[in-house]
Amino acid sequence: MPTSSLFRPIDGGVTVARGFVANALSCGIKKPEATRLDLALVYSELPTTSAGTFTTNRVRAACVRVSQNHLRRGNVRAIVANSGNANACTGAAGVAVARKECTIVAKELGLRAGEVAVCSTGVIGLPMPMMRIEPRLPELCRNLSAAKGHDVASAIITSDTREKEVAVELELGGKTVRIGSCCKGAGMISPCMATMICLICTDAAVARPDLERTVREGVEHSFNRITIDGDMSTNDTCLVMANGASGVTVTPGTPEWTAFTAALHYVMLEQAKHIVRDGERVTKFVTVRVSGAPTAAEAKRVAEGVAKSNLVKSSWNGGDPNWGRIIHAVGYAGTRVREEKVDIDIAGLPACRGGMQTTTKSDDLRERVQAPEFDIAINLNLGSSEYVIYTTDLSPEYVDFNRSEYAYWNQAKQDGLTH
Amino acid sequence: MPTSSLFRPIDGGVTVARGFVANALSCGIKKPEATRLDLALVYSELPTTSAGTFTTNRVRAACVRVSQNHLRRGNVRAIVANSGNANACTGAAGVAVARKECTIVAKELGLRAGEVAVCSTGVIGLPMPMMRIEPRLPELCRNLSAAKGHDVASAIITSDTREKEVAVELELGGKTVRIGSCCKGAGMISPCMATMICLICTDAAVARPDLERTVREGVEHSFNRITIDGDMSTNDTCLVMANGASGVTVTPGTPEWTAFTAALHYVMLEQAKHIVRDGERVTKFVTVRVSGAPTAAEAKRVAEGVAKSNLVKSSWNGGDPNWGRIIHAVGYAGTRVREEKVDIDIAGLPACRGGMQTTTKSDDLRERVQAPEFDIAINLNLGSSEYVIYTTDLSPEYVDFNRSEYAYWNQAKQDGLTH
Repeated sequence: MPTSSLFRPIDGGVTVARGFVANALSCGIKKPEATRLDLALVYSELPTTSAGTFTTNRVRAACVRVSQNHLRRGNVRAIVANSGNANACTGAAGVAVARKECTIVAKELGLRAGEVAVCSTGVIGLPMPMMRIEPRLPELCRNLSAAKGHDVASAIITSDTREKEVAVELELGGKTVRIGSCCKGAGMISPCMATMICLICTDAAVARPDLERTVREGVEHSFNRITIDGDMSTNDTCLVMANGASGVTVTPGTPEWTAFTAALHYVMLEQAKHIVRDGERVTKFVTVRVSGAPTAAEAKRVAEGVAKSNLVKSSWNGGDPNWGRIIHAVGYAGTRVREEKVDIDIAGLPACRGGMQTTTKSDDLRERVQAPEFDIAINLNLGSSEYVIYTTDLSPEYVDFNRSEYAYWNQAKQDGLTH
Repeated sequence: MPTSSLFRPIDGGVTVARGFVANALSCGIKKPEATRLDLALVYSELPTTSAGTFTTNRVRAACVRVSQNHLRRGNVRAIVANSGNANACTGAAGVAVARKECTIVAKELGLRAGEVAVCSTGVIGLPMPMMRIEPRLPELCRNLSAAKGHDVASAIITSDTREKEVAVELELGGKTVRIGSCCKGAGMISPCMATMICLICTDAAVARPDLERTVREGVEHSFNRITIDGDMSTNDTCLVMANGASGVTVTPGTPEWTAFTAALHYVMLEQAKHIVRDGERVTKFVTVRVSGAPTAAEAKRVAEGVAKSNLVKSSWNGGDPNWGRIIHAVGYAGTRVREEKVDIDIAGLPACRGGMQTTTKSDDLRERVQAPEFDIAINLNLGSSEYVIYTTDLSPEYVDFNRSEYAYWNQAKQDGLTH
C-alpha cells in the first residue's frame, strides 16, 4: 500500500475521526438475507462543514435529490444510509419517504431535517419498504457509538464481497488529525460516480468552500477514474463531513493544507481502487495510462474507450496480451489518433511501436498479464496530455451474476415489502 | 421475412445479379481450419459504377485504405477478400501487400489495379501471410463462375456460425433487376460499421453519384444501427457494384428508383439483422425503439446507451424484464431526460410509466422476454424524434468465446505464416 511521509494509514472506518459515532441495524430490506445489516447512521456530535458529489445520471434516486437539496442549503451532521433498495424511479412517493427518514432522524437527534443526508443503494424501481424502516429509526438513533463504524461499512454493501474502510492519521501542528471512510460499490460502476456510496468523516476543521473544492478535486482523480462495467448508477454519492474535533483548522496555502488534502485524496483514491478490486466477479485490476494526447479531453476519451471495450476486457480475463484489440479501441475513441505513431506497453513490455507489433515474445507478454494487476500504457505521441483510469476485466461470471434480479425483485414484490 | 410489393426475396448471393462471377479457394490463412475457404473474388464482366462505405475507426486496416483510394479515383470491377487476417496494424508493409493483391488480380483479369478493391477480416496486428496468398491469386482469377457466389459467402466469414446471403428481384419496365449480397460479421460490432464486410452486386445501371447517395442512406439505416458488443472494427467495409447487365437504368425521381432503392435498402437491413442474429454467442435479438426525444441526435444517444449497457444486456440474457436497468441507462446517455416523463414498454407491455413501475404483472413481462426476439420501446415524451437500433443480449459465453485469441495468434506466428 502506497503511503506518504505526510500521513499514515490506520485501521478503522468512519468513526476513527473524533466526535463521530455510528449505529447499524438489520431491518430485512435486503431480502432474502434478512439477518444482514442494512440500515446505518453516522452522526457528528459537533457541527460540521460538509461537501458532497453526486451522480450525473439524469435519472436520480429520491435520496440523491433530497441530500443534494439539504447540502445546497447548509451542512449535514447525520447521514442515514440503507442497502437493498435504491429508492430510485420511485416518484414523488420516493422523495416523501427520503424526506420522512430525515425528519424522523432529525427529531431523534435534535437536528433540523436539513441537517440529515440520506443514501440508498440496491434495486431500482421498487418502492422503499418504509414499514420496515420507519419503526426502526428511533432505535437506530439511540445506542450510537464510536465502536460501530465498521457496522456502517457492513450495512451499506450490496454485491460487494467485503467491507471497504480506509482511514489515515496525520500530525498537524502537534495535534493528530484523522480521516476515516467507508465505501460500497462493485457493479454499475463507470466514471463520473458509480453505484457507490462513500462516506468520509474528518475531525479537522475546514471552511465549507475549501472542503467543497478539495472534495471535487479528489473525486475527479478517484471515483471519476474508475470503470468496471461502464454503467453509471442513479444513486452515486460521496459525502464528507468535517467537524473540527481535533482542534486543528486547515486552510489553503499552508503546509497543513497540503498534507490534509494529500491525505483526503489518498483516502478517496484507495476507496476507488477498493471498488475496482472488488468489482463483480472480476479477476484483474488494470491501470490504463494514456500519454502523448493532444488534449486532456482526448487522453480521457482514449483511456475510457479502452477501459470500456468488452473485447479488450474479455481478453484480459483470458490473460491474453491482445494489443490489436487495444489499438482498435484507441482508434474508435473519437479522438485524433495517428495509427503509425501509437505505442503500447503491456505490463511494462513494449507490445506495439508505431502501430505495429514489436519483437517482444508473445509468451513474455502473456506471462505478464497472468498477474492479477498490471498496467497498460498507451502513448499517442501527438502531444503532452495524460490520463489514467482504473478498470477490470470482464468475466463470464460477471454476466452470469447479472443475468437476473428477477427472483429477488419479484420476491420483494410478493412479500408486500413494497406497499 | 418482411417483403414488399415492390420486390421479392430470392435465393442466392452476389452472383444472382447477371454479369457477376466469383471464385473462392482455401489458402490456409484461417489456421488451424486449413481446409476452410478463406480467399474469394467477385468480378463483374461489365464495367460498373461502384460505391462503398468504410469504418470510421482512426485505426484503419491497410485493405480499407487501399480500397478507399481506388474507389475515390474510379469504379471497381473486382473485389478480392480474405478471412483469417485483417491486414490491420501492419504498417507500410500491409499497404504494400494489399496493393500487390490488387495488381496481381488486375493483371489476370485485364484491369487496372485501381479497378480492384480488397477486403480482409480476421486477427489484427499480424502481417498478412502473403506467401500463402500470392501463389494462389492467378488460380483464383481463373474458373470464375456465376455458380460460385455461395463460396464467396463462405470464404469471408470468421466467427460467424453461418453464411449470410440476401438477394431480391424486381420487375422494372418489363425487365428483371436483381440485387445479390453476402455479408460477414458477428463480433466487434457497433454502430458506424462493424467488423463486417458486405458485398452487394446489382445488374441495374445506376449513375455513380446516385449509387453513392442511396448506399450511404441505406448504411445509415442498417449497418449503422446495429450493436452487439459495442466494439467498432478497423476493417468495416460495404461495397456495392452496379453493372447494368439487366438493361435497366434507374434514375432518381422515378417509380423505378423508388422500387430499386427500397429493394437495395431491404437487402442492407436484412444483412444487418443477420449480423445481429448471428452475434457471437448471443441468444436474443432486441429492437430498441426510442421516441419522443427532443432531437434525432438525442434519440440516437438514448437508443445506443441502452443497447450498449452491459447490465441491460446481461438482464436480457437472463430473460429478466429489468426496466430499472433500462431507465438507468436512459439517464446516463448524456441527453435531456425527465425521469417523471419516461415510459418504457417491454415486448408490448407497459413496464414503466412516468418513471415508475406499472401494475403489469412481473410474470407477464418475464414471459415475454423469454422469447428470442422482442422490442423495447422507450418514450421520453419530450419531443417527436425517433431512433431504432438492433442489438443483442450479452452472454457469459460471449466473454468466454473472446477470452483468448492468444493460442491462435501465437500459432500463426510460430508457423511462420506471418511474413
